[in-house]
Amino acid sequence: MKLTILGCYAATPRTISNPTAQVLEIKNHLFLIDCGEGTQVQLRKNKIKFSKVNHIFISHLHGDHFYGLVGLLSTFMLLNRENDLHVYGPKGIKEIILLQLRASGSYTGYNLYFHELISKESEIIFEDEKVVVKTIPLKHRVYTNGFLFQEKNIKRKLNLEAIESYKIDTCYFQKLVYGGDMKLEDGTIIPNEVLTSDPDPEKSYAFCSDTVYNEDILPIIKDVDVLYHETTFLDSEEHLAEKTMHTTAKQAAKIAKLANAKALIMGHYSTRYGSLDPFKEEAETIFTNVILADDGKTIEL
Amino acid sequence: MKLTILGCYAATPRTISNPTAQVLEIKNHLFLIDCGEGTQVQLRKNKIKFSKVNHIFISHLHGDHFYGLVGLLSTFMLLNRENDLHVYGPKGIKEIILLQLRASGSYTGYNLYFHELISKESEIIFEDEKVVVKTIPLKHRVYTNGFLFQEKNIKRKLNLEAIESYKIDTCYFQKLVYGGDMKLEDGTIIPNEVLTSDPDPEKSYAFCSDTVYNEDILPIIKDVDVLYHETTFLDSEEHLAEKTMHTTAKQAAKIAKLANAKALIMGHYSTRYGSLDPFKEEAETIFTNVILADDGKTIEL
Repeated sequence: MKLTILGCYAATPRTISNPTAQVLEIKNHLFLIDCGEGTQVQLRKNKIKFSKVNHIFISHLHGDHFYGLVGLLSTFMLLNRENDLHVYGPKGIKEIILLQLRASGSYTGYNLYFHELISKESEIIFEDEKVVVKTIPLKHRVYTNGFLFQEKNIKRKLNLEAIESYKIDTCYFQKLVYGGDMKLEDGTIIPNEVLTSDPDPEKSYAFCSDTVYNEDILPIIKDVDVLYHETTFLDSEEHLAEKTMHTTAKQAAKIAKLANAKALIMGHYSTRYGSLDPFKEEAETIFTNVILADDGKTIEL
Repeated sequence: MKLTILGCYAATPRTISNPTAQVLEIKNHLFLIDCGEGTQVQLRKNKIKFSKVNHIFISHLHGDHFYGLVGLLSTFMLLNRENDLHVYGPKGIKEIILLQLRASGSYTGYNLYFHELISKESEIIFEDEKVVVKTIPLKHRVYTNGFLFQEKNIKRKLNLEAIESYKIDTCYFQKLVYGGDMKLEDGTIIPNEVLTSDPDPEKSYAFCSDTVYNEDILPIIKDVDVLYHETTFLDSEEHLAEKTMHTTAKQAAKIAKLANAKALIMGHYSTRYGSLDPFKEEAETIFTNVILADDGKTIEL
C-alpha cells in the first residue's frame, strides 16, 4: 500500500498548500480519497495517471473536500476517458455534479456511477477479491464518513517443516495456499491446517476526516495498520475544535492509541499555524509512531 | 485601467497554466471576469485583495470559466467578508452555487446577489457614475456573453486660451468642467462651449470569450480601446474552431481590425500548443497591435 498526499490542509486553498485529497494505491487500485479544489493539478504534479483512478471516495460536502470533483470529472471527459468511474459520497453529490454537467451542455463519454451514502452505521461500500472498503461514520457539522480500506489476505502460510516431512512437491503449494487438503499417493488425506497456518493479518488503512473526537469509531478501526486522523487544531485551540467539530493533535493521538493503530498520520491542519512540528510534538506525548502528512508526501504503508 | 491575467488557457487546469480568469481595475473597481478552477489561488499569487472584489462577471457555464467560483465565495465566507458581492452570469448559476452552499450547511455572512442573464441582445448590467458594463452576446455551444467595460468621462476639457482671455479665476474651473456656463462680474453670460471642449473619449475594454468568429458583435465593440478576444486555435485548426465554436488567431485579428480596436489581447489558447509565438505571428498578418495574454501578466490599458 502506498499513500500520496495531494493536499492536507483545512479550509481554503493557498499558494503554498492544498485542501484535502489523497491517493491510496492498494492491490492495483488507485483510490482517490476526497477531492478539494485543485486536485486535478495535484494529480498531474504527482504524476498519477488519470485513467487509473476508477473510484473516488468523498467524505463530506464541505468545499475543501470536494470542490475539485466536478473539474476532475470534466477533465476526464475532455481526455476521452473510457473506463467506468465510481463516486462514493453523501447523498446530494450526484445532483450537484449533474446540475453542473448539464449546465455546461456536457455528457460524460464514460459511465459515471454515483453511490450515495446515507447510513449512520458502518457499511461495506466496495468489495472485490482483494480489497474491501467500509465507511467509518464520523461526527462533523454535516453528514460525514471516513473510510476503512482493508486488503483481503486469503493466502494461507505454508508450514514448510510439515510439507518437507510429507515430501510434498511444489506443484501442490498453490492448492495448499488456498486452503485445499492434500491426498498422498497412498490415499492418506492430510488436512490443510496441518500443512499451513493462518494468513498474515490483512493490511488496513483508515481515513478519518473531518470529525470531532469520537470514541464510537474505535470498534471499526481497531488494530488498523495506519490511521489518518484529522488534527485541525493544537491543544491551545481545543475550544475551537469542539465548537467547529474538529480534533486536536492530542485527541487524534488518543484515538490512535485506543484503537491500537500501528501508525498515525496527521493532517487537515488549520492554515493558522506556521509550523507543523508542534502537531507532532503534542501527539507524541500520547502516541509514538506519528507521521506528519504534507502535500506531495508519499508514504509507504 | 489595468488588466491582470490570472488564467488564459482553455479546457483543463495544468501545473503550468490556468483556465480563464482576469481582474480589471477600472475607476477604483476590481472586476473579476470569469473564475476557472484555482482562481482564488491565482488571486493570492497576484496579491489581489479579496475584499476589493465586489463584482464578478461570468461569461458562460463551461467549467474552465466558473468552476472556481463556488470555492472563492466559500473562502470569502471563511474570511468573514462583509461587503456585498454581485455575480453576473447565465441563468442557472445561482442554483448551482446555492445548491453547493446549502449542501455544506453554509450561509454567507455577506450579501450575495445574483444577476442572472438571459437576453440575447446587448444590455447594460452595471452602471455607476464612473463605469458602465454591457453584455456582448457571443455565439458558443452554450449561452455566452462577453462584457464591454466603458469608463464614463463626463469632465469637459478646459479651453485655457478662452479662459485666460476672460480672466476667469481657477475657483470656477470645476463648474466649467462639469458643463456650467460662466457669469462674468458685468453680468455677461459666457456659454460653456466657448470655455471648454468635448471630453476625451472614454476608455473601454471588451472581453470576448468563448465564441465562434462572429461579426454581429462589431457594432457593440466598435472603436474599443482594447479587445480581449479568444484565440483557442491556430489557422491550421480552423476546422476545429468551427466545430467547437471557437476562434483562430487570424479570425480574432480580423474582428479587431473590423471593430477598429486600438489593441488586441489574445488568450484562451488550446493547451495543445507548445509555444504562443505562432498566435502573435498569425494575428499580426492582419492586425498590428497584438498582445499575448499569459498567466500572471499585467497589462496597463
